[in-house]
Amino acid sequence: MENIVVRYLERPTLNDPIFIEGLPGIGNVGKLAAEHLRDELKGVKFAEIFSKFFPPQVLVQEDGLVKLVDNELYYVRREGKRDFVILVGDYQGLTPEGQYELSDRVLKEISALGVKLAYTLGGYGMGRMVTKPRVLGAATDLDLVKEMEQHGVVFSRGEPGAGIVGASGLVLGLLMGETSGYFVDPKSAQAVLTVLTKALGIELSFTELESKAKQIDQITSKLREAEAQPEAPSKEDLGYIG
Amino acid sequence: MENIVVRYLERPTLNDPIFIEGLPGIGNVGKLAAEHLRDELKGVKFAEIFSKFFPPQVLVQEDGLVKLVDNELYYVRREGKRDFVILVGDYQGLTPEGQYELSDRVLKEISALGVKLAYTLGGYGMGRMVTKPRVLGAATDLDLVKEMEQHGVVFSRGEPGAGIVGASGLVLGLLMGETSGYFVDPKSAQAVLTVLTKALGIELSFTELESKAKQIDQITSKLREAEAQPEAPSKEDLGYIG
Amino acid sequence: MENIVVRYLERPTLNDPIFIEGLPGIGNVGKLAAEHLRDELKGVKFAEIFSKFFPPQVLVQEDGLVKLVDNELYYVRREGKRDFVILVGDYQGLTPEGQYELSDRVLKEISALGVKLAYTLGGYGMGRMVTKPRVLGAATDLDLVKEMEQHGVVFSRGEPGAGIVGASGLVLGLLMGETSGYFVDPKSAQAVLTVLTKALGIELSFTELESKAKQIDQITSKLREAEAQPEAPSKEDLGYIG
Amino acid sequence: MENIVVRYLERPTLNDPIFIEGLPGIGNVGKLAAEHLRDELKGVKFAEIFSKFFPPQVLVQEDGLVKLVDNELYYVRREGKRDFVILVGDYQGLTPEGQYELSDRVLKEISALGVKLAYTLGGYGMGRMVTKPRVLGAATDLDLVKEMEQHGVVFSRGEPGAGIVGASGLVLGLLMGETSGYFVDPKSAQAVLTVLTKALGIELSFTELESKAKQIDQITSKLREAEAQPEAPSKEDLGYIG
Repeated sequence: MENIVVRYLERPTLNDPIFIEGLPGIGNVGKLAAEHLRDELKGVKFAEIFSKFFPPQVLVQEDGLVKLVDNELYYVRREGKRDFVILVGDYQGLTPEGQYELSDRVLKEISALGVKLAYTLGGYGMGRMVTKPRVLGAATDLDLVKEMEQHGVVFSRGEPGAGIVGASGLVLGLLMGETSGYFVDPKSAQAVLTVLTKALGIELSFTELESKAKQIDQITSKLREAEAQPEAPSKEDLGYIG
Repeated sequence: MENIVVRYLERPTLNDPIFIEGLPGIGNVGKLAAEHLRDELKGVKFAEIFSKFFPPQVLVQEDGLVKLVDNELYYVRREGKRDFVILVGDYQGLTPEGQYELSDRVLKEISALGVKLAYTLGGYGMGRMVTKPRVLGAATDLDLVKEMEQHGVVFSRGEPGAGIVGASGLVLGLLMGETSGYFVDPKSAQAVLTVLTKALGIELSFTELESKAKQIDQITSKLREAEAQPEAPSKEDLGYIG
Repeated sequence: MENIVVRYLERPTLNDPIFIEGLPGIGNVGKLAAEHLRDELKGVKFAEIFSKFFPPQVLVQEDGLVKLVDNELYYVRREGKRDFVILVGDYQGLTPEGQYELSDRVLKEISALGVKLAYTLGGYGMGRMVTKPRVLGAATDLDLVKEMEQHGVVFSRGEPGAGIVGASGLVLGLLMGETSGYFVDPKSAQAVLTVLTKALGIELSFTELESKAKQIDQITSKLREAEAQPEAPSKEDLGYIG
Repeated sequence: MENIVVRYLERPTLNDPIFIEGLPGIGNVGKLAAEHLRDELKGVKFAEIFSKFFPPQVLVQEDGLVKLVDNELYYVRREGKRDFVILVGDYQGLTPEGQYELSDRVLKEISALGVKLAYTLGGYGMGRMVTKPRVLGAATDLDLVKEMEQHGVVFSRGEPGAGIVGASGLVLGLLMGETSGYFVDPKSAQAVLTVLTKALGIELSFTELESKAKQIDQITSKLREAEAQPEAPSKEDLGYIG
């Protein structure tokens, strides 16, 4: 059995495509952002990536059918403009070797599609609540650094201090939304997409992400209330803890 | 050394066989069910699967002889009806790679035997005691979903929420008995087999499973009694706990 | 780089040799026994086994020279009798794959040397102090079971309950000395060797093992005294624990 | 994708070069020492080593550009004397296999450069604060042991007791500075370099390392003060810990 199997449903011919990747990770920021982009732009699935570097797991869908976990490639055709290729997925590779192999394979596949510019989206865990997430950037090209700075991306020395871990780091331009790292964070995903839409010259509705963000806000504010009024255990209770 | 070694004791020619798999897992539901089926139908062992994805372990049998851990294939011939192939084993693969490789290899072996329909049996951990286990299902084919619903299988959106992990998920039709996940659960195995016997159109004695279930019930009810009357540590005791 | 490298210092021609293996493990029983046997019988090293399944580690010897960790093969020539091949080593393979690969490779090497009978020595962890260790056995041949029973080996149904883990289990006849599993256990190694010398028809001095056993006994009896008179923490101490 | 990729920026012809390696490890002693040597001697980078045995990680540099983690080879040309090859890097291999493979590959590359003598630098964790670190040594050649002893290296029986783990151990001559193991330890790196400069017959400024050592000293002395005056929790506090 091969380590990675790429199954093409269709072999699209694309116009100087831009690659956008968002996989599960801190705050699921990249995944939320890329899936939102795919949904809003009505991306068409054209390839599925299976691998023994993913968990040996099937997901049960609403109709009772099972689906083996995968990563998926979608294209978005844009009349007279550069097309998009979007990568989303259920998992990143489980091991360092898997991360390298999967990133290497994705790079080979998108190179064959003519991709020269890639954005990988992710979260940057702050370890504290973030009300107004900034978007941090990094790139493999100084021109791209300058261009992204014009769209409000922060290139901050020493951030992220410990380096970027995972698939996000192995491709070309990186956009990371600040996030607490405690919750799935649609607000940070929106911040990332706001920058990306400027860079790509497109417009996007954020209604879906905003309603998801509201749900998360409700949960977190309840949790904060609960934390503010902790039930102090009485001395008697202690007797039964053991 | 090869990753997986399949040793055939016999190369049976089978009549449009149905594959049934039950390996160790949550509550050992799948293993209990598949082994019970094999024992009741007097399955004949025809292949042993060894692999370095299993633990490097031998089991000591009652006669003092050792047996390297393995998975085993049995056939059941049924006069004028579809035959069965049953997979049981001491272990599932230890790593994700092992799970993928072993599932892939089993699929190749049973395809060569002419298998087109497969049931994989397992448990679905509820994290609480289950008195009347339902049987949840999933499949790779909508017709199979409908057929299994007629036999009482529940296809419930969002259950299992986090997907099905392990070898069970990589083959074709899945039957999962609800189980606490705390104990070996023959009652859940019986629930799974009750559905399966309807699907296969066979009859089965459950005496063995029922007596195992009684033993487990005795143990768990004792544990529950013990929990209901905890020895409250005295204030003095607390002083020495630290 | 190959997974396993076997470096022969000499290619001995041996007389119907018997293989004896003792690697580190529970109570280091197997390693202690096999090394004692090698020392007493003045075994001659003829091969070194290096592997990336061992830790990436060198050991510093007394003269300041480093030695890459390995397993080593020794032979013992016995005038007019069956020769011995003894395997000892610094480590077992670190992973299940490593265990399988190393056992497979050792089997190939000793088969090439003409080995037909093998004893693997190990400890059987009891989880409690053992004053008079029994020697438990298992084998791949019923005749060997019977022969070993005559030498006092116990073939006890259900022991070892959970199977034998590690390299010991992958070869042919097993001898396991009961041991607490808490300490290096020369007494258990001696019990194993006492059986083995009967099986091999040889005599052996145990002076070295006995003096090691005395040292361990002194340590454990001190520990037991210390346990018998625990310093009960006073109420005041508790205030500073936090 | 290959396990290890060595990218040569230049293929230098060197004069009977001596190899010096210092990778991250206990107290980062080896890395600090080798990087200091490279900086002071103005080493020229001539090769980058990438590997899937390193973490799948990019580092963000000050200009916002990303760099995939690697190991790097530098050369130092010395008019009419033996040249140096210095290996530094962001990581050691993550797994035992990775350690073996990377060490094996580095050995092959430096052999091709004509290296016959190698020093690998590291720390030796003492588990307690060390005010005046000794430098312990080990080697694969008795002459080298004697030579290093003349430079003040300690070859002490039983130290390091448990053997040397990691890449340091797989090459030729080893120098290990004693270090607590709790902090990055520039003082220990200086002790190692002091020995090495004698062995190499070179002079070196230690200003940089000394200023780093001062910073660490300030941090550790603050921590020691804080430890000396612990805030004793009051009895009342205890009531809420539960």
